[in-house]
Amino acid sequence: MFSRGFASDNNSGVHPNILKAINQVNDGHAIAYGDDPITQKAIERFKQIFGDDIEVFFVFIGSAANVLGLKALTQPHNAIICTETAHINVDECGAPERFTGCKLLTVPSTNGKLTIDGIKKHMHGFGFQHHSQPKVISISQVSELGTVYTIDEIKAIADFAHAHNMFLHMDGARLANAAVALNKGFREFTRDAGVDVLSFGGTKNGMMYGEAVVFFNKDLANDFMYTRKQGLQLASKMRYISAQFLAYLEDGQWDATAKHSNSMAKLLAERVSKIEGVEITQPVHANAVFAIIPPELIPKLQQEYFFYVWDEDRSEVRWMTSWDTTKDDIEQFANLLEDLMKTVRQ
Amino acid sequence: MFSRGFASDNNSGVHPNILKAINQVNDGHAIAYGDDPITQKAIERFKQIFGDDIEVFFVFIGSAANVLGLKALTQPHNAIICTETAHINVDECGAPERFTGCKLLTVPSTNGKLTIDGIKKHMHGFGFQHHSQPKVISISQVSELGTVYTIDEIKAIADFAHAHNMFLHMDGARLANAAVALNKGFREFTRDAGVDVLSFGGTKNGMMYGEAVVFFNKDLANDFMYTRKQGLQLASKMRYISAQFLAYLEDGQWDATAKHSNSMAKLLAERVSKIEGVEITQPVHANAVFAIIPPELIPKLQQEYFFYVWDEDRSEVRWMTSWDTTKDDIEQFANLLEDLMKTVRQ
Amino acid sequence: MFSRGFASDNNSGVHPNILKAINQVNDGHAIAYGDDPITQKAIERFKQIFGDDIEVFFVFIGSAANVLGLKALTQPHNAIICTETAHINVDECGAPERFTGCKLLTVPSTNGKLTIDGIKKHMHGFGFQHHSQPKVISISQVSELGTVYTIDEIKAIADFAHAHNMFLHMDGARLANAAVALNKGFREFTRDAGVDVLSFGGTKNGMMYGEAVVFFNKDLANDFMYTRKQGLQLASKMRYISAQFLAYLEDGQWDATAKHSNSMAKLLAERVSKIEGVEITQPVHANAVFAIIPPELIPKLQQEYFFYVWDEDRSEVRWMTSWDTTKDDIEQFANLLEDLMKTVRQ
Amino acid sequence: MFSRGFASDNNSGVHPNILKAINQVNDGHAIAYGDDPITQKAIERFKQIFGDDIEVFFVFIGSAANVLGLKALTQPHNAIICTETAHINVDECGAPERFTGCKLLTVPSTNGKLTIDGIKKHMHGFGFQHHSQPKVISISQVSELGTVYTIDEIKAIADFAHAHNMFLHMDGARLANAAVALNKGFREFTRDAGVDVLSFGGTKNGMMYGEAVVFFNKDLANDFMYTRKQGLQLASKMRYISAQFLAYLEDGQWDATAKHSNSMAKLLAERVSKIEGVEITQPVHANAVFAIIPPELIPKLQQEYFFYVWDEDRSEVRWMTSWDTTKDDIEQFANLLEDLMKTVRQ
Repeated sequence: MFSRGFASDNNSGVHPNILKAINQVNDGHAIAYGDDPITQKAIERFKQIFGDDIEVFFVFIGSAANVLGLKALTQPHNAIICTETAHINVDECGAPERFTGCKLLTVPSTNGKLTIDGIKKHMHGFGFQHHSQPKVISISQVSELGTVYTIDEIKAIADFAHAHNMFLHMDGARLANAAVALNKGFREFTRDAGVDVLSFGGTKNGMMYGEAVVFFNKDLANDFMYTRKQGLQLASKMRYISAQFLAYLEDGQWDATAKHSNSMAKLLAERVSKIEGVEITQPVHANAVFAIIPPELIPKLQQEYFFYVWDEDRSEVRWMTSWDTTKDDIEQFANLLEDLMKTVRQ
Repeated sequence: MFSRGFASDNNSGVHPNILKAINQVNDGHAIAYGDDPITQKAIERFKQIFGDDIEVFFVFIGSAANVLGLKALTQPHNAIICTETAHINVDECGAPERFTGCKLLTVPSTNGKLTIDGIKKHMHGFGFQHHSQPKVISISQVSELGTVYTIDEIKAIADFAHAHNMFLHMDGARLANAAVALNKGFREFTRDAGVDVLSFGGTKNGMMYGEAVVFFNKDLANDFMYTRKQGLQLASKMRYISAQFLAYLEDGQWDATAKHSNSMAKLLAERVSKIEGVEITQPVHANAVFAIIPPELIPKLQQEYFFYVWDEDRSEVRWMTSWDTTKDDIEQFANLLEDLMKTVRQ
Repeated sequence: MFSRGFASDNNSGVHPNILKAINQVNDGHAIAYGDDPITQKAIERFKQIFGDDIEVFFVFIGSAANVLGLKALTQPHNAIICTETAHINVDECGAPERFTGCKLLTVPSTNGKLTIDGIKKHMHGFGFQHHSQPKVISISQVSELGTVYTIDEIKAIADFAHAHNMFLHMDGARLANAAVALNKGFREFTRDAGVDVLSFGGTKNGMMYGEAVVFFNKDLANDFMYTRKQGLQLASKMRYISAQFLAYLEDGQWDATAKHSNSMAKLLAERVSKIEGVEITQPVHANAVFAIIPPELIPKLQQEYFFYVWDEDRSEVRWMTSWDTTKDDIEQFANLLEDLMKTVRQ
Repeated sequence: MFSRGFASDNNSGVHPNILKAINQVNDGHAIAYGDDPITQKAIERFKQIFGDDIEVFFVFIGSAANVLGLKALTQPHNAIICTETAHINVDECGAPERFTGCKLLTVPSTNGKLTIDGIKKHMHGFGFQHHSQPKVISISQVSELGTVYTIDEIKAIADFAHAHNMFLHMDGARLANAAVALNKGFREFTRDAGVDVLSFGGTKNGMMYGEAVVFFNKDLANDFMYTRKQGLQLASKMRYISAQFLAYLEDGQWDATAKHSNSMAKLLAERVSKIEGVEITQPVHANAVFAIIPPELIPKLQQEYFFYVWDEDRSEVRWMTSWDTTKDDIEQFANLLEDLMKTVRQ
């Protein structure tokens, strides 16, 4: 019905295994709002991964996981430090400010990652009543520029946060892609690295809908069931989210799809970097390729493949691969780009 | 996997036709966030039903449809009039107050329906700056007590609202059950009766997730796409909600399932009303049966069938039927109740 | 310039002693936002009255004292229980809901006072995620109907609140009038009776502006300086509020003015109750007289004296006395009422 | 009682003429909440200055004037563009975000003033539902760095705003100082230059408390009386704010005090710029002097005169003059600085 492009990993459909899992739980009645055995099993699965002493809550979307998770960490007079390019800053239509009441303090970043130096710029005004009090550092793993924090980088930021009585929040909309990039389990670069609250995403890696807010400190989750409900994120027929997570987390499902996406991005980057006139602008850690191409080519390329212009001034575009991207997709796309490029160079 | 009970129509699963529709749109890529052909088609279907000059937005759940719809009608200094038993008052954990900033003004009601007389109690303080200004009347069709407003009743409330420069909002979580009860099309008792904004539900009648906010006055929807996003209700893989609505609205799907639910409730009411010691407390217009039974029977009955106690003081319970309730379910349930009742009378 | 009426105790001016205190601190510079010696002295004065281990914050108005105090006690998913006639429910334009995110649960009351029985109606749904969780009981002392809680009544409500892990908030806009009515010090019927957070008012008893939020549990005030600032209630030239409170609390100032107001209300009630056709509807504990008079007299009486109609249906009016009400004011007012009444009876 | 320093113009007291005006309206009763003749007269005075077709509302403080004014211009999904150093961004503890729900988009500025180029950085994402929609440009006149926009600069920003369907908001906490600096009437560089909503301050120029929100487009103020009340900014004894404004606006009062403050700042700048080791860092348009001095001198100087360090890294300090600063104050301060400087150079 639809052709495949490089606009976003959420333009892809649902992985057959996930869809199968949905179909398989559609029998009979289950108590609504999460008090069903499928949901309990899915939560158990998270505990096997991250440890027993955690709290897990399913919500509908990644923005909600972020916003409600941040709410749990803050009072309205707090501030949240993130990059200028953070999803919470530019892609959630002000939901973090509206729902938490907090101020976002942004740090410019060329590669999508926060640095301690960048954070320090905002580390002042503590105890000064006129000033929003910094309380959370939020990082995106994978970052919005397709880069991945090393475990040491995360640990350093976590230690810095905790040394200042602050929390570390991680937006893990593409957590599986990061795990593959780092070649580590989820726990090693989240909980074990000092993350306090995690948005655990699945939709961009083959799920239909549903994300999880994972609390590594249970005390922070004391009121969260009310926050989720008041935040309009409590699913009635919860079993259909839970079944997706069960399938996602079993048998290497998440790993296989993320591995595929990442490898397709590497392939794409390799292929197009050989085309004269294409400049890759970010390291390709996960499933995104950022590139500068001649501006006149963009609309022509978009006639065949939908994708986003990232920075119009620089003529920089973003190409995302996903679990269903094929080598053929890449080859055909690269061929078209190559052909179009010839028209430029004439 | 699960047995069937009478707890809620959202304990039931997804109707096979709806599930089939989900499976059928899982091919290839679709632009995320609603800019896809399936979503356009689903919106068109709503327009065929309600008229071209409407705006339709899909969200995840009924509470969100209500809260965001009410937000579109109000400023934070406004008040919203509803019954004491309204879902927006007792089942949304304060989300209406938190997201709209408004005050809810409640009216006691014995049958779940608002009356003009009840509303009038709150019609004062207009222009008085200390007083939250009433701006919306919100009714639930079907009501939370299983009763259904007649078209004339809705028209009277709508006329009253508009005469006072107010809006009429309808929570239609069980709109199909109301349509069946009234034996009318959706439009006749919503738009044509004067409703301004409608929460159009499907989850309680066989969908998996997804509700619609329908604006009969397009001006009210001017900013709603931002409200939906900031309200954390914009689905990325929107096609899966849209496909459900398409299936739900085609070929009498919604009508068939709602008819079945309603008829099962009638059957249940007829059957149990013949048992001595059972008192039916509300007219059975749709798919709910409210009854008073001896308090000592409730836990015994709940060992076999999950359902909610509605009013502990009165020993009043609520039994909901759904699209998958069978005559056998009812017969077995009634038999058990009958048997248990014998133990009481001894 | 203005004549005196019976509209409200905030229609009166500033007591000369208070005004003198303002004039006396107008010399030289004082660090803004409360870090000045006058403010420290005023806070000390509160500690002498209520005990050392308290926290006191000055704000501009009583509504703000209420709303910010309630915010300190709640999370947005909480509910606050109060009477239907509570100032926080009917006279603050929804500010409590908007700033705290909480739901207000109201209890009908004929005399303005909450009872345990009335509160119990709302004591359900604890731990149920769909339900705003009751967390605060708020009472007004003096109540909005001019009645005063006994110390035992307050203790009973406080014990009930604490037994349910809830807080007791007191709106003390007319606290001095209550102290006079009870013939007790402030502490005995607030802190010692179990109140957790108090709005301590002065404006209705001779101050120009400025109220205090008093925390009897310091832990509740941990973040309050930020809440006050974010709530737009931090005065820059704080010394002028503080000087008022110092004058108000020294040398029996508050006591003298409240005693006078209360005695004038008693005198008014005695005088008008002798007029046939006047029915006093509430006990006159403090400085308010509620009465039913013939409806046709109200506009005529209002031509000479401004006052509010309390309940139009019952033709019930409210007359407030204040620190500057004189016996002559009352005599002339009563005479006019008497004369007008004669026109009715003819 | 207090000595004079250079910390802030709100550390100074109330001008005797203003205090006299307060004392003069303290006779008899006035209807509360602004429905009194003094308030009507004060509003008339604003209309004489700005034109009849305006709306004026008094509030308590400048932060409230800003936040409530911005609320009147926005919906929660909007964004507000301002400098990084704007009072609304750094000195209001996140109140703008919390009360409006909007995102603040900040522009770096070396002299405290916004430029069209700086604004343009944020002029994207219009119509994109994920993005907070820019709706207001907010400038401070005088800026937080003591600089003053020319009328042409304001007009250019206003034209730019209006061309993009946006509003221009002005924070006029020090509006009188700007008027003096520009040698223009209030209207010429506000309404006539294209400002839509103005925070009109008086507290920093000799008033006790009270600021005004002035709407040059009355439609924007339709609901503002409710916004003010719900925003906890409606004074009960309003006459005391109104009397201050009347005195402030009569007989060149504001002009005389602002002229004095500005001239004292110029004197201070001239005097200290002659001291070797002092570097003035901003043009002295109004009543602020920014200077870099040796860091070791700061605590010594602060032992005698309270003032704020503006930028610790640069050892930059801010000295504010006010209506009561004397030539002697400046001479003594400069002498002390000069003496201290000698200890450095040794």
